[in-house]
Amino acid sequence: MSESRGAARAEILSIGDELLLGEIVDTNGPYMAQRLVPLGLSVGHYQTSGDDMDAIVAAFKLALSRADVVIATGGLGPTDDDLTMEAVAKVFGVPLEHREEVLDQMAARLKRPKDHLTGSNRKQAMLPAGAHVLRNDWGTAPGVRYSTPEGKHVFLMAGVPREMKGIFGAWVVPFLREHYTRGETILLRHFAAFGIPESRIGERLKDMMGPGHNPDVGTRVSGGACVVRIVVRAKSQPEAEALMQPAAARVAAALEEGLFSDRDETLAIAVARMLIEKKKTVAVAESCTAGLIASLLAETPGISASLLEGAVVYSNDAKVRTCGVRPETLDAHGAVSEEAARELAQGIRARANADVGLSVTGIAGPDGGSEQKPVGLFYVGLATKDTTAAHKFVFHGLDRNIFRERAAHQALDLLRRQIGA
Amino acid sequence: MSESRGAARAEILSIGDELLLGEIVDTNGPYMAQRLVPLGLSVGHYQTSGDDMDAIVAAFKLALSRADVVIATGGLGPTDDDLTMEAVAKVFGVPLEHREEVLDQMAARLKRPKDHLTGSNRKQAMLPAGAHVLRNDWGTAPGVRYSTPEGKHVFLMAGVPREMKGIFGAWVVPFLREHYTRGETILLRHFAAFGIPESRIGERLKDMMGPGHNPDVGTRVSGGACVVRIVVRAKSQPEAEALMQPAAARVAAALEEGLFSDRDETLAIAVARMLIEKKKTVAVAESCTAGLIASLLAETPGISASLLEGAVVYSNDAKVRTCGVRPETLDAHGAVSEEAARELAQGIRARANADVGLSVTGIAGPDGGSEQKPVGLFYVGLATKDTTAAHKFVFHGLDRNIFRERAAHQALDLLRRQIGA
Repeated sequence: MSESRGAARAEILSIGDELLLGEIVDTNGPYMAQRLVPLGLSVGHYQTSGDDMDAIVAAFKLALSRADVVIATGGLGPTDDDLTMEAVAKVFGVPLEHREEVLDQMAARLKRPKDHLTGSNRKQAMLPAGAHVLRNDWGTAPGVRYSTPEGKHVFLMAGVPREMKGIFGAWVVPFLREHYTRGETILLRHFAAFGIPESRIGERLKDMMGPGHNPDVGTRVSGGACVVRIVVRAKSQPEAEALMQPAAARVAAALEEGLFSDRDETLAIAVARMLIEKKKTVAVAESCTAGLIASLLAETPGISASLLEGAVVYSNDAKVRTCGVRPETLDAHGAVSEEAARELAQGIRARANADVGLSVTGIAGPDGGSEQKPVGLFYVGLATKDTTAAHKFVFHGLDRNIFRERAAHQALDLLRRQIGA
Repeated sequence: MSESRGAARAEILSIGDELLLGEIVDTNGPYMAQRLVPLGLSVGHYQTSGDDMDAIVAAFKLALSRADVVIATGGLGPTDDDLTMEAVAKVFGVPLEHREEVLDQMAARLKRPKDHLTGSNRKQAMLPAGAHVLRNDWGTAPGVRYSTPEGKHVFLMAGVPREMKGIFGAWVVPFLREHYTRGETILLRHFAAFGIPESRIGERLKDMMGPGHNPDVGTRVSGGACVVRIVVRAKSQPEAEALMQPAAARVAAALEEGLFSDRDETLAIAVARMLIEKKKTVAVAESCTAGLIASLLAETPGISASLLEGAVVYSNDAKVRTCGVRPETLDAHGAVSEEAARELAQGIRARANADVGLSVTGIAGPDGGSEQKPVGLFYVGLATKDTTAAHKFVFHGLDRNIFRERAAHQALDLLRRQIGA
C-alpha cells in the first residue's frame, strides 16, 4: 500500500501444510499486521508456504528482496516436517548450531532435568549461527531474531497463536518500536456506517483514497456495515492530529445519518453498547430472523441488563400466545404485514415492560412467497410506551440466511435510531 | 505436500489493503483450498497483496510462473482502489473493454433500469479483453476467467465471502473438475462428528492420512464439529467405489456415537434436517445462548414447522413469566442450576405444546462467575411429555462468544440424541 510514503516495509510469512490445505485459517498475520502499522511499518505482502524446503527458502529470499523486516511463523516444531530454522540458515549461508541456553530454558519451563529432554527438544535447540534467541515462555520452540549486516531483520516464531502472541509482544514489538518509529507518528481511525452503499461512500471520498494520499482513506464492508479507515502519517503527534481532524470530520460528514460508530465495530456491538450506556431496555419479537437479533445483541457482555426478553415466534399461535397479536389482525392482514409487525412490537414491549419493543416479520424463503408478498419482504416494528411504527422493506434475490442477516441488521439500525433519538 | 502426485498446481491470491492491515482474516483462501484438493489440484502458495498496482501485477506474474491455476479474490469493487481487473489486463498485455452483458446482469439483479446504474457500476463492467464472465448472482462485481494460450487459467472473484462462495461453487469448481480430473475418477465423501476431539480421530485414522495415501483421509474442525474427508482416486467408477466403501466404514466406526452426518454439514443443519424429516417439534428456552440455538436451527428452510417457539430469557422475570420456572426454584438453586434448566425445558415445551423442550442456562462471562458457579458453567435441559433431564457442563477459559457457540452446539447435540432415539 504505501511504497510512496517511505515507511519501512515488513513482510509476513506463514509456514505449514495445514494452511495450504485450508484446514487452518491464518489469524497470525492479521494479528501482527494490526500491531505493525502503528510502529511505522507498512506491511507489503503476506506469503503462505507449505512444509517444503525449496518453497520456504524461496519465500524468504523474495521477502528479503523487498522488505526490511521479515516475520515468519510456523515450522519450528519438533517433527521432521518443521523446516524453518534450516531454511533460514540456508538463506544466509550459515550452519545450524546447538544453543545450550535454549535447552536450559526448556528444562526450566518443563520443570524437568536437562538430560531428560528428548531428541525432538534437542532439535529445537539448533538455531542458525549468529541468531538472537527470543525466549518462549508460552511453549517449547524458541523464537529467533536474525539481523543482517545490511540492517534487515528476520523474526521466526512458533505458529501456535498463543506462543506467537507471547513472543511477538515480549520481544518483537519492543525491538521494532525502538528501530522503526524514528520520529514518525502514525494515527489510525475508523468510522462505521449502515445503510449507505460502499460505492457511494467511495465516490464521496475518492480524492482521499489510494496510494500516495496522506491522510489515506480506505473502505471495507463487514458485518452488514461499511467501515471507513483513515491513516495519517506525520513528523509529530500534533502534526498528525492536525491532519487527522479535518479528515475525520470529512469522513463523518460523508457517512451522514448512516454513521453509527467512530470505532471499528459491528452494528450489533454498537447498538448493544448504546443500550447499555443509555440504560435503555429492549424486548425483541422475531419471526423470520428467529433469534438472530437477540443473539447478535448478546455478543456484548452486560447486555443482560438491557435485553429483557426475546421471543422466536414463527407460528401464528406463538405470535398470539406470547406477543398478544390479535387473531383478527392475522386473519385480515396476515402474519407478514405492517399491522402484525406493530402488534408484535407492542406486545413484546408490554410483556417485558421494556422501553422499546422491536419486531421483525417477513418471508425468508426459498418458499412461502406470493405475488403480493414475495420472498424478501419484511416489516420491522418499533414500539415505545407512546408510539408505534412499522417499516416495510423488500430485499430481492438474497439467499435465505443472507436475507435473515440483512433483515436483522435493518432492525438493529432502526433500534439504534430509536434509542439515539 | 503433494508434489509427489504430479497434481496440477494452484495458487491463491488475496488482494486488499484491509488484509495487509490485519483488519480482516482471510477465510477465502482456506475455503477454496479445501475444495481444490479433491479436484486433483495441489495448492502450492497463497499470496496476499495490498491495493497497489505494482504489487498485484508482481503477485500474478509470480503465481503464473509456478502454478497452472491462479485464483484471486478481492479488488473488484467499484472504487478507485480496486485494481485487480486492470492489473490482470496489464499482466496479459490486453486492454480493458466494456461488457454490456455485465451491465444487463447488474440491472436485472438490482431491478433498476440500466441507465440508472452509476459510474462505479460501469467501472465494474470493464473486463480484460478476452475474459470469460462468471455471472455473480450474489453481488454486483462479476467474476472472470482468463485462460492463456498455454492452458493456464486465472480466476478473479469478489472478496466478499458470500459472493466468492457463490461464484466459486457455480462456475469455478465445475470448470476445474472438467479440466483437471481427466479420466481419473475422484470420489469425495464426508462424515461429521460432534464431541470427539480431532486429535483422537487423527490417532485412530493415522494410517490413512497424509501424502501418498489412497484413500486419503483428512480432518478439520468447523462449526463446532469435526469433519472427516475421504478422497479416493481410481481409474474407474467401480474401482473408486470399491476403495471408498471400506474406508467409509472405517471412518464411520472411528467416529462412534459422535457421528451425526454422512455429509459435510454443520451440526445445526443436521439437527434441523432430522427435526423436519421426523416431523418432530421443538421449543427452545435460552438464557446465555440468547437466541443462538433458535437462529442456528432457522438457517434451514422448512424449520418453521418444527421450531414452534423460542424464548430468550436472560432475566429471572422472563424465566418465570414465559417458561413458568418457579420463583422458589430460582431462590433455592439460582438461575444457573440443574433445577432451573429442567423447569425451563418443561415450561417452554408445555407452552408451545412441542414434542421436545430444550433449554440452556449458564454463565458466559466475562463477569458473573463465582467459585461455586464459575464462568463457563452451563446446564442443558431436555423435556418430553414423559421425561425431563438436565446435563451439566463446564468449559473453562473460553471467550464469551466462543463459549456461547459451544454451549449452543452441546445443546443441539443432546437434542439430536433425543430425537434420534
